[in-house]
Amino acid sequence: MTLPPVKPGKIVTMGEILVDIMAVEHGRGFREALNLRGPFPGGAPAIFVSQVARLGHPAGIIAGIGDDDFGWLTIERMKRDGVDVSAVRVDDDYVTATAFVRYHEDGERDFLFNLARSAAGRVELNAPARALLAECGHFHIMGSSLFSFHLIDEVKKAVEIVKANGATVSFDPNIRKEMMDIAEMRAGIELMLQYCDIFLPSGPELLVPTAAHSEEEAIAALFPLGISMIVVKRAARGASYYDRTRALDLPGYKVAEIDPTGAGDCFGATFITCLRQGMEPEACVRAANAAGALAVSRQGGMEGISSLAEMEALIARAALSENELTFQTKAI
Amino acid sequence: MTLPPVKPGKIVTMGEILVDIMAVEHGRGFREALNLRGPFPGGAPAIFVSQVARLGHPAGIIAGIGDDDFGWLTIERMKRDGVDVSAVRVDDDYVTATAFVRYHEDGERDFLFNLARSAAGRVELNAPARALLAECGHFHIMGSSLFSFHLIDEVKKAVEIVKANGATVSFDPNIRKEMMDIAEMRAGIELMLQYCDIFLPSGPELLVPTAAHSEEEAIAALFPLGISMIVVKRAARGASYYDRTRALDLPGYKVAEIDPTGAGDCFGATFITCLRQGMEPEACVRAANAAGALAVSRQGGMEGISSLAEMEALIARAALSENELTFQTKAI
Repeated sequence: MTLPPVKPGKIVTMGEILVDIMAVEHGRGFREALNLRGPFPGGAPAIFVSQVARLGHPAGIIAGIGDDDFGWLTIERMKRDGVDVSAVRVDDDYVTATAFVRYHEDGERDFLFNLARSAAGRVELNAPARALLAECGHFHIMGSSLFSFHLIDEVKKAVEIVKANGATVSFDPNIRKEMMDIAEMRAGIELMLQYCDIFLPSGPELLVPTAAHSEEEAIAALFPLGISMIVVKRAARGASYYDRTRALDLPGYKVAEIDPTGAGDCFGATFITCLRQGMEPEACVRAANAAGALAVSRQGGMEGISSLAEMEALIARAALSENELTFQTKAI
Repeated sequence: MTLPPVKPGKIVTMGEILVDIMAVEHGRGFREALNLRGPFPGGAPAIFVSQVARLGHPAGIIAGIGDDDFGWLTIERMKRDGVDVSAVRVDDDYVTATAFVRYHEDGERDFLFNLARSAAGRVELNAPARALLAECGHFHIMGSSLFSFHLIDEVKKAVEIVKANGATVSFDPNIRKEMMDIAEMRAGIELMLQYCDIFLPSGPELLVPTAAHSEEEAIAALFPLGISMIVVKRAARGASYYDRTRALDLPGYKVAEIDPTGAGDCFGATFITCLRQGMEPEACVRAANAAGALAVSRQGGMEGISSLAEMEALIARAALSENELTFQTKAI
């Protein structure tokens, strides 16, 4: 294992809590009245931390909500999953962040965010946040949270605190096309690559931080930056794991896709949690693939999180049908 | 007529443009995923001004939207109705305001607003706004727009400009229970009563500005403040008109209620427009009652505006069925 030793403590993340309002009808944009469904509690860091807690690992989040139904809905939901919400600031001046989401016919999504000027844009390292960081064994950041210089500054301070304490750091670029307009985001991604031990890009995001043109080139360029593990998420096609000595490709699990929101967040949370619980990288990726598959089979970001038993059951069913396939092949 | 002479020019309003997202299911609050429908272009001043323009009167609005689908949807819609949107500021930092609306079983509504920290909260008297005010013959303010000291200050400046130019002013308190928590609102209402020529309260709102305990007391207390006309809106039950010499009660028109959003705004716009077009107060109230009834028969705030022909058709149908009723009574 090339990762630094596991420091006991909570898995902590920092970033946006929001509610998703999802268009029921496929198409482009929000320039006409549509059938919608929501609010669904979400935000990549919030989904991540709820999945960690559901797996039984101590977990907390530094975040902000408005004093409104949307905020309290997400807090109650995270509490039920066991998340430490003591560092969630209730803002009396700004509302809870929202994301309207609509699917194109081809599966691509449009987002309409209220984020920078919501309670989620005012996250800061106040006393409760610093108290939570003092208990942190692993710190995870989503690229989606680096949407302003204010947040990049606060995340930088947090990362420096936890690194000084011996905690490990993971980073999921989690870039949405609507966010690439935000000049701050590239600065944020560059910052996180300096600090991260585990890098969790989705497919082509692997190429973003370096000048690489292929996956092999990117992997070769990233390890010298101090990264110990890279896990490339490939949605339905599974994931690849790389450290300095190994490369593994593991297939995804087949499910009926209902809503991909949060699948990558559940994947990352499961991989990190299993790793900290002492599982081998291969088993961690298998569980993470199962977590991602279970997430896409349910509507709503935070609705997609699942227990280890559910993940194990999916893995066992898949193994069984592979055996059946093998048996049938032999029988022919 | 006790109203100051009609100064030629546009009917101008100033305040929030927003989109409504409406719960399809009745109940309380937004703490679970619901079926919703939206975005519907709205905001009381935006509905008001679109109704004015639909009636063929020159009309403009001083407002702010975000550079997002919700904002452009409302602008395109107002332009189609003929509204001068040259003083709508497109904000590159704040999003278009939103209002989630849910009906209780008893018809009361819950609102969840993103208003003060939206583009609608940053309305200001910039150069295009002052240019529009220079063309203003009548200025209308909704109480719902007085949600911050910043807006009260800007509205105060605008009212003083148009009054100095000889324009008349109307005020619709349009108070929502979620807004009464806003300390600024009472200050705003008091301000507007100093300036307004035409006061357009809904039912019990008539009692809010004075210490009166009855409608008669309130009317008697309001005229000395300089108000020339008071029209009390009573939803399905019609409206009452008062000036210093007359009192009229006119019944509402029966329609199947789909959504009351914007009905009071359409009422006010129609009353003011008809008055400026030289109609007698009684005919103005009849048309306004018809506008309100047509508005509640359609879903969505701005979707509820209608043409003078539609209003006249409803009034004619109602007169006809009254005659039929009379005829039947005689025939027995």
